[in-house]
Amino acid sequence: MKICVAQLNYKIGDIENNTQKIADTIHEAKQAGADLVVFSELAVCGYPPDDLLDFPWFIEKCEQGLEMVAQSCQGIAAIVGGIGTSTYSTGRQLHNVACFMRDGRIEDTVKKTLLPSYDIFNESRYFEPNREHRVIDYKGVKIGITICEDMWDKYNTFEYEKSPASHLSVNGAQLIINPSASPFCIGKQKIRNKVLEGNTKRFNSPIVYVNQVGAHSDLIFDGSSCVVNGKGEKVSTLDTFKEDVQYIHFKNGEITNASEDETNPEAEEIKLIHDALVFGIKDYFKKMNFKTATLGSSGGIDSAVVQALTSTALGGDKVHPVLMPSKFSSSGSVKDAEQLSKNLGNPHITIPIKNVYNSYVKSLEPHFEGTEFDTTEENLQARARGVILMALSNKHGHILLNTSNKSEIAVGYSTLYGDMCGSLSPIGDVYKTKVYALAQYINRDQEIIPNEIINKAPSAELRPDQKDSDSLPDYSTLDEILNLYIEEQKGPWEIKSLGYDSKTVEKTIALVNGSEFKRFQSPPILRITSKAFGRGRIIPLVANYC
Amino acid sequence: MKICVAQLNYKIGDIENNTQKIADTIHEAKQAGADLVVFSELAVCGYPPDDLLDFPWFIEKCEQGLEMVAQSCQGIAAIVGGIGTSTYSTGRQLHNVACFMRDGRIEDTVKKTLLPSYDIFNESRYFEPNREHRVIDYKGVKIGITICEDMWDKYNTFEYEKSPASHLSVNGAQLIINPSASPFCIGKQKIRNKVLEGNTKRFNSPIVYVNQVGAHSDLIFDGSSCVVNGKGEKVSTLDTFKEDVQYIHFKNGEITNASEDETNPEAEEIKLIHDALVFGIKDYFKKMNFKTATLGSSGGIDSAVVQALTSTALGGDKVHPVLMPSKFSSSGSVKDAEQLSKNLGNPHITIPIKNVYNSYVKSLEPHFEGTEFDTTEENLQARARGVILMALSNKHGHILLNTSNKSEIAVGYSTLYGDMCGSLSPIGDVYKTKVYALAQYINRDQEIIPNEIINKAPSAELRPDQKDSDSLPDYSTLDEILNLYIEEQKGPWEIKSLGYDSKTVEKTIALVNGSEFKRFQSPPILRITSKAFGRGRIIPLVANYC
Repeated sequence: MKICVAQLNYKIGDIENNTQKIADTIHEAKQAGADLVVFSELAVCGYPPDDLLDFPWFIEKCEQGLEMVAQSCQGIAAIVGGIGTSTYSTGRQLHNVACFMRDGRIEDTVKKTLLPSYDIFNESRYFEPNREHRVIDYKGVKIGITICEDMWDKYNTFEYEKSPASHLSVNGAQLIINPSASPFCIGKQKIRNKVLEGNTKRFNSPIVYVNQVGAHSDLIFDGSSCVVNGKGEKVSTLDTFKEDVQYIHFKNGEITNASEDETNPEAEEIKLIHDALVFGIKDYFKKMNFKTATLGSSGGIDSAVVQALTSTALGGDKVHPVLMPSKFSSSGSVKDAEQLSKNLGNPHITIPIKNVYNSYVKSLEPHFEGTEFDTTEENLQARARGVILMALSNKHGHILLNTSNKSEIAVGYSTLYGDMCGSLSPIGDVYKTKVYALAQYINRDQEIIPNEIINKAPSAELRPDQKDSDSLPDYSTLDEILNLYIEEQKGPWEIKSLGYDSKTVEKTIALVNGSEFKRFQSPPILRITSKAFGRGRIIPLVANYC
Repeated sequence: MKICVAQLNYKIGDIENNTQKIADTIHEAKQAGADLVVFSELAVCGYPPDDLLDFPWFIEKCEQGLEMVAQSCQGIAAIVGGIGTSTYSTGRQLHNVACFMRDGRIEDTVKKTLLPSYDIFNESRYFEPNREHRVIDYKGVKIGITICEDMWDKYNTFEYEKSPASHLSVNGAQLIINPSASPFCIGKQKIRNKVLEGNTKRFNSPIVYVNQVGAHSDLIFDGSSCVVNGKGEKVSTLDTFKEDVQYIHFKNGEITNASEDETNPEAEEIKLIHDALVFGIKDYFKKMNFKTATLGSSGGIDSAVVQALTSTALGGDKVHPVLMPSKFSSSGSVKDAEQLSKNLGNPHITIPIKNVYNSYVKSLEPHFEGTEFDTTEENLQARARGVILMALSNKHGHILLNTSNKSEIAVGYSTLYGDMCGSLSPIGDVYKTKVYALAQYINRDQEIIPNEIINKAPSAELRPDQKDSDSLPDYSTLDEILNLYIEEQKGPWEIKSLGYDSKTVEKTIALVNGSEFKRFQSPPILRITSKAFGRGRIIPLVANYC
């Protein structure tokens, strides 16, 4: 049996174009002599559709989409992810399904059993779990279909009560097919490999793992689909951050690679992060039909990295940086920012904020009598810049990108409605120390980001001789504490017991907890870690906890 | 058996103070001769604790809190909501529990079976459902404990597979106790009454329903706990939007009211909305330890209503309105805003935005050459105001309140980082037509909001002679369409089929869908309808659906 593994990029909710893409791929696979094409989870509507699933008219469209695709299955079979209406007398009305189609119709519908509901996943909100398990017999092969999490029964932070794969194995499955929608984060590919290996060992059957590729504001799906033989060896790996279609053979209970391609070697971490962010920006602009970007270019490392990533994603001529110096900006910073735009081929402009800032100060003077320059005036500068950038965005249609990094978002060292403005936050899940690593990676072949930007001490330049280190611990210590508190979810006492200075730990955690209100109004952040700010981390605003 | 129904206001995560409050109430109930005190769901940590439940150190604190409370149960029993560690070998590690305490220890722990995961609820994210059902025998009475949703098995948009109350009834429960955390929305009290009545009819047992009271940024818990006898009649109703403790008697299988209080009559809808919003603002400030508020006072109806609600919540002297006229502000608006502040006793100030606005226009001039006045310049005015308000907030510590209503948030007729600024949105779930009704209610005894404000045509006053009706259908039609699309979740075709103008429906829905990116960065909105913008409505940003 020749199987086509179709790793495609879907737009959420866009049933018409998604189903057309699926039908086209089925047609091509048939031309190539395939017997079966496999698509990723919820292919028809894209993953995650979120509360679009609450709309009855949307469900109807999804079901019509599946029917349309089924009609295109003539002389070939397909497994297509979509939404199914429940056949049970109790429980939620929807299922997350994979439809087995042939001869122009949906021959069988397999429901998802394990519904991930943690971190960025929310499936119990919508779906009723599967209650029965059967294999599909196609051309003499017993195929067991598990959907994404169904394969993760023993590989989560907890073990699920049910094991759909065990049931299918008992029922004689010779080949496991797993349509998935598993988003990228650092280290995720290793975990997936362990899950695939564990499953082949437990059930002695090869697995075809078909992941979604594509980015949707915060979530980046990397693809990296693969096929594992019964010994747990990868015989085929599909592209990362790109659509890819490959063919494999299933014969005598085992899988072989049809195209004899070499499998892709695993990329190093910093390259993966870089490529994920470039893909996240690129796909966001493409799917939103945005053409050009703008951002505040300060001469600092954060805006430099965002500017470089965006130039790679969209092309240098599509990025319009704005230099907005104040009296606190060093001449070095301005020069460095100009050099950066030159290196990247960005058409930059300069708008000093002095006049706007002074007019605010003057207007507020009667009400600020007897007060000193403090964070109010620092914020005024950041907000004056935010308003200028938004005006340029409104007038010229450039999309404003946010340049905050994860360390400063964590401790709230950013100004709401100022440097927190933006439509998308490309490095909001990248700690400051990793931002430096990204800059080095961007410069791997030539000096794109001027070395002066990389080497200078970090500063917001909002008052004379300001340095981040005046009020924060050095970033290597800060990032370690933040990682322990945010990703590792350790409490203050545990972190202190690891040898960190008690006052530093307390201050850091108080800053993190005290800035939930800012993060609540933050733009969507491209997710690259196991715990990004955003939908995967929901902390009460009105609370008192540590 | 004398039972104390304790409807208390908890702060989320604040185990120490919550448990102290619970222990104090147990002590008082014992003095009053009660045999049993019942508290609301998750009383120990407050509801909803969200991802605080992901932190192992937080779970430890919750468990210690329950132990501490148990120790205070000497000569009296208590049912206290909290977090329990799972005793099952598979599944999630936590349960949502109600502990039955007496003689200084936790004698039994009842787990929640039905975990609401829809709208604002997210419990499948954290908890493993209960798998067994037993009654508790106390002083010869068989008590069946259900936790909140456990009583809603047949009363949701779908019927649950399991019915915990049926199991308890079969096991001989004579009295059902239901600790809850059920948030307020319009019409919710009626639905609860139906659920209570339905359950007493099905099982012939009285129900003690103990709801949480308190507001946490977006969610307002009204309390309104009550006790229903075996015939489905209310024998006791606790206060709405206030802490309340009442005593009832259970004897010979039936409930009687100990205090012979009259039960509270049901309030009319507009009074409920008004009281909910005042309570939402008041409790937000109290729990965040904020003292004073500020807002932009435009002379329009929205800011007038927010100003009045906030003055009621905090006191007139605690509200610091800022008038920020531009050349497009009518003299009437300024006069009306001044009169409003006078009526409410608010210390207001005036800061014209002309100079700030002009300095922006001048700074941007070289880059706006050849362009016309458009929404860019309108947004500049709104953002100049936002920055001024935030500067006053930063300098003086006044908390900025947002004044957007639900109609304009829905269609995106508000400026991101401009009039969308604010720490809390008091009327963001109130449609414009209801804002007028609120204004009339506020003026029920005397003219607090000047009639001129209520009677003038709505306008953003951002360009000459602008009226909302220039670009939007009249608000009564708009609000009907919005309600059908948002609360009723009807598709465009269904709405058109109800007789609405086709173009108006399409335009309205396109505006709603096209402004998801703005709402993503909106402040938390006080929830008063069944479908508020915020955590209960999760729509993908990058999508194409209707």
